[in-house]
Amino acid sequence: MDKVFASIITIGDELLIGQVVDTNSAWMAQELNKIGVWLHHRVAIGDVKEEIVRALEEEGKRSHVVLITGGLGPTADDITKPVLNEYFGGKLVVNEEALDRVKAIFRRLNMPETAMLERNLKQAEVPDTCTVIQNAKGTAPGMWFEKDGKVFQFTMPHIGHRTLLTAGIGESALAEHIKDFEEALPAHFKLAYLPNFGMVRLRLTANGAIATQIEQELDTQFSTLQAIIPDVTVVNEDIPMEELIGRLLLQKNATLATAESCTGGYIAHLITAIPGSSAYFNGSIVSYSNQVKKEVLQVSEETLATDGAVSESTVKQMVTQVRRLLHTDYAIAVSGIMGPGGATPDKPVGLVWIAVADAKQVVTKQFNFRFDRTRNIQLTAISALNLLRLLIVDNQS
Amino acid sequence: MDKVFASIITIGDELLIGQVVDTNSAWMAQELNKIGVWLHHRVAIGDVKEEIVRALEEEGKRSHVVLITGGLGPTADDITKPVLNEYFGGKLVVNEEALDRVKAIFRRLNMPETAMLERNLKQAEVPDTCTVIQNAKGTAPGMWFEKDGKVFQFTMPHIGHRTLLTAGIGESALAEHIKDFEEALPAHFKLAYLPNFGMVRLRLTANGAIATQIEQELDTQFSTLQAIIPDVTVVNEDIPMEELIGRLLLQKNATLATAESCTGGYIAHLITAIPGSSAYFNGSIVSYSNQVKKEVLQVSEETLATDGAVSESTVKQMVTQVRRLLHTDYAIAVSGIMGPGGATPDKPVGLVWIAVADAKQVVTKQFNFRFDRTRNIQLTAISALNLLRLLIVDNQS
Repeated sequence: MDKVFASIITIGDELLIGQVVDTNSAWMAQELNKIGVWLHHRVAIGDVKEEIVRALEEEGKRSHVVLITGGLGPTADDITKPVLNEYFGGKLVVNEEALDRVKAIFRRLNMPETAMLERNLKQAEVPDTCTVIQNAKGTAPGMWFEKDGKVFQFTMPHIGHRTLLTAGIGESALAEHIKDFEEALPAHFKLAYLPNFGMVRLRLTANGAIATQIEQELDTQFSTLQAIIPDVTVVNEDIPMEELIGRLLLQKNATLATAESCTGGYIAHLITAIPGSSAYFNGSIVSYSNQVKKEVLQVSEETLATDGAVSESTVKQMVTQVRRLLHTDYAIAVSGIMGPGGATPDKPVGLVWIAVADAKQVVTKQFNFRFDRTRNIQLTAISALNLLRLLIVDNQS
Repeated sequence: MDKVFASIITIGDELLIGQVVDTNSAWMAQELNKIGVWLHHRVAIGDVKEEIVRALEEEGKRSHVVLITGGLGPTADDITKPVLNEYFGGKLVVNEEALDRVKAIFRRLNMPETAMLERNLKQAEVPDTCTVIQNAKGTAPGMWFEKDGKVFQFTMPHIGHRTLLTAGIGESALAEHIKDFEEALPAHFKLAYLPNFGMVRLRLTANGAIATQIEQELDTQFSTLQAIIPDVTVVNEDIPMEELIGRLLLQKNATLATAESCTGGYIAHLITAIPGSSAYFNGSIVSYSNQVKKEVLQVSEETLATDGAVSESTVKQMVTQVRRLLHTDYAIAVSGIMGPGGATPDKPVGLVWIAVADAKQVVTKQFNFRFDRTRNIQLTAISALNLLRLLIVDNQS
């Protein structure tokens, strides 16, 4: 069985000077993966005609399917469409359906049709050599080209994945621990280690002709893997920690609040990014100033004076009060020094105190992160959620 | 003068199935740009020996400098180092300095040296054909190879940018407005449109041999551009809205608080992601539940019953109370329906009410966003910050 290979060409100078992070390609990669198309090459190039033509030539030889993204806007720097038109040897014609869509967007924005500029109308122009894919979200239509009159008929292979999140073990030690398992994997299997935020995701991948057979083999191997590392497994799915927390709270019909100093609302943001989180998340007090810690979270003047805002006693009072004030079953509190400023001789950048609480107990833990502000905030948030997870799971057992 | 061209090769299956977004390349692109190296090709490939060798061949021909990232971990799926070793025809030897660094990291983590595994020690191995670049952040050393004994001596060209953020005008209308300016730009200039969050960034780029001359030309052209669009210009630098807000508040020696329902702490997170934000940001009340709106933010029972949580009267009360409770000069309040759930017949997904306030006035505005949850949250946050910006700027004039 032949594999179907795909390439992605991303066009835009902003990708080459680092002004924009390419999230579109990651999404397309996911979608290709779902339908069994093997993305084996991703290329980013600038808004330069010669580079675009060269990439079309090269990727056309390399892959069966080439996806091109970028440069379809209405402005002069977006040269993709004219270059494609020339490359595939057509001429630009107005597509009526695309034009209707441009007009509809203007109506929806309460702008008169007379406000439409020639460049808006130009967005409805497409090469007559392509099949138009209408754009439900914007004004620029998608385009489908076939080169040399070939129509490909493929038998798609099946690609399956299982992902498992571990915590509390380093990448090396984990690899050592599952060495025998890894070495015994069949040739059509692959195991990948994806470390992030002090945790490691393990991704098991297999491919083959018969979907049911591959999925069954994956189930078997994945069960074996899980049986080796139950103590460090956080969840046996590829979901983020905040989604797992949501599920655990829903299962217990329990609620959560956060009191955040150094994370500045980031934990609340992670939690509320999950649809349906209003069922278990009541809210947060972001106590960035000491005044809010004192007046809203009732941290005592004395604690702040003697132990300071970044201390075990402060996060204990924060977590207790936010749980009471927001009437929740569980609560998280964090206070720390994220950098680059704010360090004192005995409290370095990266020092963080975290507290989690339920009706029966308050658990505290000190952390020392050694990264920059952005990463320290992320690590604090994930560590706090993991500490809460352990408290919830502990309650269940 | 010759340009120095660079390529980036990113290695890792996770990039090809979309499990990870490639932020490393964006950073490297920025750094190359700063030193005048012209990144013209970025390639992502999987952990496959043949693909890595082929990419090395191709990019080696295409560019003067090739940066390779990914796959230097201690696990079996990380094949980059052995492949590079073979490609450049050397043998792996232990680098003592790198070994010392691995040992030092174990000491810092309070792990005994005996806990080091062979695979940790292997991280200190490097091909004897490379120059080692010590890694200050982790255990895997960097490697510098030169092929065919060539040592390049370059005169670097200078690449300069000016970026300007606009709001309140669409990409097409903006392009139309500055058409004459754009058409009159010299050939070594480029103008790019980067739309995001309903705003458009304009990036002016120029390159040439003499840095001072290029910078001077850029200043002149950028001044001309600014003079054409003062009414829609937010800031004439490439900084995010939250950093601009921070500067404005610092200039006025003023403080800010937020009361967030639908954004769930995201606005507070954006603001506190900026170093030094504790000088002007007191905190936030994330009132995800109606109970918090009532008890902490004093929204009246009657308002919630008659107008609902997503209403002008609710955000008015939220903004007034959070400003009072957190003792700030300015405040922001938001309430809306982010989707996918939560819509009612008269309140669709994307409906958002925003209020901003100072001592003298409360300004409210209704928005209707039409995207998914993630993007609706982002748009609400940026729109709220922009409304605050207008209030602050209005006070100044």
